[in-house]
Amino acid sequence: MALIVKKFGGSSVATTKKIIAVAQRVLDEKKPGDKIVVVVSAMGDSTDDLIELARGIDRDPYKYPREMDMLLTTGEQVSIALLAMAFERFGQKAVSLTGAQVGMQTNSAHTKGKIMEILPERVKKELDEGKIVVVAGFQGVDSLGDPTTLGRGGSDTSAVALAGALKADSCEIFTDVEGIFSADPRICPDARKMQEITYEEMLEMARLGAGVMQPRSVEMGQYFEIPIHVRSTFTSKPGTFIRKEYTMDEKGFVIRGVAHDSKVTKMALIGVPNRPGIAHQVFSALAKENVDVDMIVQSIRNIDQNVTDIVFTIASTDLSAARRVLKPIVAKLDAMDLVIEENVAKVSIVGAGMLGSPGIAARMFGALADESINIDIISTSEISISCLIASDRMMQAVNAIHKEFFPPA
Amino acid sequence: MALIVKKFGGSSVATTKKIIAVAQRVLDEKKPGDKIVVVVSAMGDSTDDLIELARGIDRDPYKYPREMDMLLTTGEQVSIALLAMAFERFGQKAVSLTGAQVGMQTNSAHTKGKIMEILPERVKKELDEGKIVVVAGFQGVDSLGDPTTLGRGGSDTSAVALAGALKADSCEIFTDVEGIFSADPRICPDARKMQEITYEEMLEMARLGAGVMQPRSVEMGQYFEIPIHVRSTFTSKPGTFIRKEYTMDEKGFVIRGVAHDSKVTKMALIGVPNRPGIAHQVFSALAKENVDVDMIVQSIRNIDQNVTDIVFTIASTDLSAARRVLKPIVAKLDAMDLVIEENVAKVSIVGAGMLGSPGIAARMFGALADESINIDIISTSEISISCLIASDRMMQAVNAIHKEFFPPA
Repeated sequence: MALIVKKFGGSSVATTKKIIAVAQRVLDEKKPGDKIVVVVSAMGDSTDDLIELARGIDRDPYKYPREMDMLLTTGEQVSIALLAMAFERFGQKAVSLTGAQVGMQTNSAHTKGKIMEILPERVKKELDEGKIVVVAGFQGVDSLGDPTTLGRGGSDTSAVALAGALKADSCEIFTDVEGIFSADPRICPDARKMQEITYEEMLEMARLGAGVMQPRSVEMGQYFEIPIHVRSTFTSKPGTFIRKEYTMDEKGFVIRGVAHDSKVTKMALIGVPNRPGIAHQVFSALAKENVDVDMIVQSIRNIDQNVTDIVFTIASTDLSAARRVLKPIVAKLDAMDLVIEENVAKVSIVGAGMLGSPGIAARMFGALADESINIDIISTSEISISCLIASDRMMQAVNAIHKEFFPPA
Repeated sequence: MALIVKKFGGSSVATTKKIIAVAQRVLDEKKPGDKIVVVVSAMGDSTDDLIELARGIDRDPYKYPREMDMLLTTGEQVSIALLAMAFERFGQKAVSLTGAQVGMQTNSAHTKGKIMEILPERVKKELDEGKIVVVAGFQGVDSLGDPTTLGRGGSDTSAVALAGALKADSCEIFTDVEGIFSADPRICPDARKMQEITYEEMLEMARLGAGVMQPRSVEMGQYFEIPIHVRSTFTSKPGTFIRKEYTMDEKGFVIRGVAHDSKVTKMALIGVPNRPGIAHQVFSALAKENVDVDMIVQSIRNIDQNVTDIVFTIASTDLSAARRVLKPIVAKLDAMDLVIEENVAKVSIVGAGMLGSPGIAARMFGALADESINIDIISTSEISISCLIASDRMMQAVNAIHKEFFPPA
């Protein structure tokens, strides 16, 4: 007897047929006495359809974030009602609950709400009555009683947070992949499905570009210490467990994964006066515009003229904001140039084990050198090493590094 | 400065263009300091689309009334969000509120909820802050916090009840007709728009087939004594006020309207034993199946055999239920026959003034006689007289009666 929270995304509930299939699958896996909560997203593209509808009122409907949340929360409300009906059709007692009804209290930051507290008394009551509880993901309610949404990846976050509040045995995230892989299988055919990965490593993987899980939901799992089981919608095979510590011994793998990120842009402020406060001036201006700066290198260009180059990377989506911020700064500092390079990519290795294993960095650099791939910038964290390289070498780099750390059997 | 509740139906908000037009119109009519609440239905056919979607799960989705309400309440939630955005786009502060948020407390009779209490504190607060409050019609919330819907005509009922709870100065119902007419203008070209009509008369008109207003919303207006202004979405001319008493003197009109109803079926139980308890047996069986019986006539067929005929009318939509109920009764009572006549119609006149004006009935029957229209059954209430006639004479009958009581100027 277990309490399990299962989350199905929008593509799993895109049609009424698929909704019926989800109900069937949940019932197939349910053991007698199990308490099941199913968290679902809006059907298929219905959220996009609602956004498009709002564009009929104003081309930029996100100017009205409270009303966008009022609008968008209807998407999940439709899918929970239908899924609850599907369970009932199979003779299984079920009840659908909105974000407000499951006590998903958020702040009032509409369209990007943060969960403040979960008061799932209603959920517990319904579970005790033998019902499957179908919950609208992605949404909550603020202190005024207004519907809110949690922003990107919000349904995963809802599911994990609710699992935490309910002290569930596990939270299963159903996706279109079979689990977490040692690299992206689309670019690295040798990538292996991991049986386990720690929250910490998963967070680092996500931060460095691995797209399966949104960092917020992993953080939520880590906070509540809820094992997250990432698994496929299409098979019943086990996927990957994200948990605090390894329960099995997957020997020899100091590295848990190779991540890559091609949506990176390199910016170089050339010939900046080398005096205190310059870096602060540059990066605080970027921070004010919410431009996240990743790798940073500062190097002396010319000792006689006492000028330096400040080189850093940003997410490509922030490029226009960064350009807007830096233009006046370049002028004010009388810098020689602002060079923007878009055809770069970041490849990274992640693994908590590297802390106690010297020589990991050398092996990574060696793998790249063997392929004559030039490293532009290197950055490290306690559990990762990242290299900036030319984007047209990214695929080759990922495969070379993967082969080094996950040699074919 | 007035507090006005305005209600727009689904066809008025069928597209984003129409929603913008509704916002524009409300703003055009708003005087400085006016407090405005706008109640809206779901966009166009969207409720039907949601029902169709639910049919993808189960051909009879109303088996799951709680989930149907969870589903259907999203329809209005979409339109209130969009209309609030439209107001904001015009620079008018606005806020959308669901049935739950306006404190529309109902019982738990899902898909046909009854309003128990309205606690509109949130609405008052938002109005005091200078916002136009956009409210989801047709919906409420039960004591569990579950969304409910009010059933047919529910948006009118929401609007009038909310106007009552807010002690509004009036409730304006926008429709595709210009107001309440002395007869249905589609079949009686001489029909006149009434300036006023009493709740009592309007209820009787609605009961007797006039389709503009649902009886429940008129009852709600009567209960709260809120003047209901029925007016056109397409013009700014005044429509018809439904109120407690006449404020103007519309001389000479003892009759306020001619109503008709072609969706009537006549049933005759022929040759039933004439002994006490028979009528009770027949009509309580029908009542148990929610078949509403209207006109009733009992007449002696044959004194020697001591058998009678029981003749009555029902709504045509109840025919199959009535047949199911009566079949075993006919057998049990050993009645001679059950005759069903579907090509009948009811024409009625309504007017509180007829109480003090003798001869009204005679004038009605005379108008029919002049056209050689045979009267099958007559029934009367304090403020109405109804005649059952052949349905193919209905149009002629309405026009003849109308001409008698509303002679052309």
